Amino acid sequence: MNKDLQDLLNKLIRFRDERDWAQFHTDKNLAISISLEAAEFLEHFQWTFEDEDIASEKLEFLSDEIADILIYLLLFAHRIDIDPVQAAQDKIEKNAQKYPADLVRGKSDKYTKY
Amino acid sequence: MNKDLQDLLNKLIRFRDERDWAQFHTDKNLAISISLEAAEFLEHFQWTFEDEDIASEKLEFLSDEIADILIYLLLFAHRIDIDPVQAAQDKIEKNAQKYPADLVRGKSDKYTKY
Amino acid sequence: MNKDLQDLLNKLIRFRDERDWAQFHTDKNLAISISLEAAEFLEHFQWTFEDEDIASEKLEFLSDEIADILIYLLLFAHRIDIDPVQAAQDKIEKNAQKYPADLVRGKSDKYTKY
Amino acid sequence: MNKDLQDLLNKLIRFRDERDWAQFHTDKNLAISISLEAAEFLEHFQWTFEDEDIASEKLEFLSDEIADILIYLLLFAHRIDIDPVQAAQDKIEKNAQKYPADLVRGKSDKYTKY
Repeated sequence: MNKDLQDLLNKLIRFRDERDWAQFHTDKNLAISISLEAAEFLEHFQWTFEDEDIASEKLEFLSDEIADILIYLLLFAHRIDIDPVQAAQDKIEKNAQKYPADLVRGKSDKYTKY
Repeated sequence: MNKDLQDLLNKLIRFRDERDWAQFHTDKNLAISISLEAAEFLEHFQWTFEDEDIASEKLEFLSDEIADILIYLLLFAHRIDIDPVQAAQDKIEKNAQKYPADLVRGKSDKYTKY
Repeated sequence: MNKDLQDLLNKLIRFRDERDWAQFHTDKNLAISISLEAAEFLEHFQWTFEDEDIASEKLEFLSDEIADILIYLLLFAHRIDIDPVQAAQDKIEKNAQKYPADLVRGKSDKYTKY
Repeated sequence: MNKDLQDLLNKLIRFRDERDWAQFHTDKNLAISISLEAAEFLEHFQWTFEDEDIASEKLEFLSDEIADILIYLLLFAHRIDIDPVQAAQDKIEKNAQKYPADLVRGKSDKYTKY
């Protein structure tokens, strides 16, 4: 794994262990936590309009939510020994197969439609 | 931003632009997408038990979901010009203030209880 | 509880018990399931625009998702012996206190702002 | 629609209109809101264990969350002119086809496995 992400992960594990929290970090609970943090993130857009700019006072909250999602994502990936950046690289390859540029240009349909 | 993440982001932007999909990638839609991918991830644990091991045939699906979450997270972070790894580093500092190790050891309460 | 909802609940319990599924219906798993069905519902709006009409071929899917959310909601409410319609009536009263009409008219801010 | 639910819906519409909030209640925003309320509901189980009883001081919060989910669900169903109780009745019939009792008894697999 990339050094910066590995450093971050090491720090997260230390933070967790200093608090004896590994007992709560089951696969299921981490998966729930990713979902909850994603909802807190989405909450900032609950009543906004599509073309509305993000209010500057929201930026710090959004940055914190992005951080929380990444934190739980890394902790989970570590449990199943996956490098998330490599996983994303692999997924882009798959997506390129599912969504050939010429076929889907300007369309937002799901690939099951093609 | 870290070089590997920057490379990944560049590839995502190219992928998006080759398909003319930026028009769909509003802040709100990306926030929804992170939430939906997080739900697809959680779905793998819907009826499992806490102490159940992850079936090996699930690992590729989980890896793909982790990838999808990271992909939308990076695309969003880019829109508001945030480095997610730095954001996570900053968030750990905040969390260390909210959850002093001596106070919370072995407890899973929210910080509002302390 | 209202007779129609009670009939529906009875049917759900019979459905569940004929399949011996009560063992999977823990509080936590039902809470997860509500969240997952809500995400499947939201997925129909992932890339739509705010003012876009719902395509008529989506209506049956949306109806099914509404059904799934209500089903898990009823099963959960039954476990903690709550009448959801009464709970909603009570909640409207609380909301009326939190959001006095004169104060919030035409605004979408959270009540913590008032 | 059932009289109690219709009464509840009427009250919700009045509440909404007294605050001039219909402008925020787009299909998409209501779908987001259902999802967010479902996440707030799930949050009460984030770090709990499967077999843990619900703490009695949580019951009121859970009741309020159930109410919030039902409220947005009704408001949405009203927009597409669906009776959620009837939708659930219809869905049970479909589920009975997808999950024949004899085939799925005691199993939690998705129907795509059968």
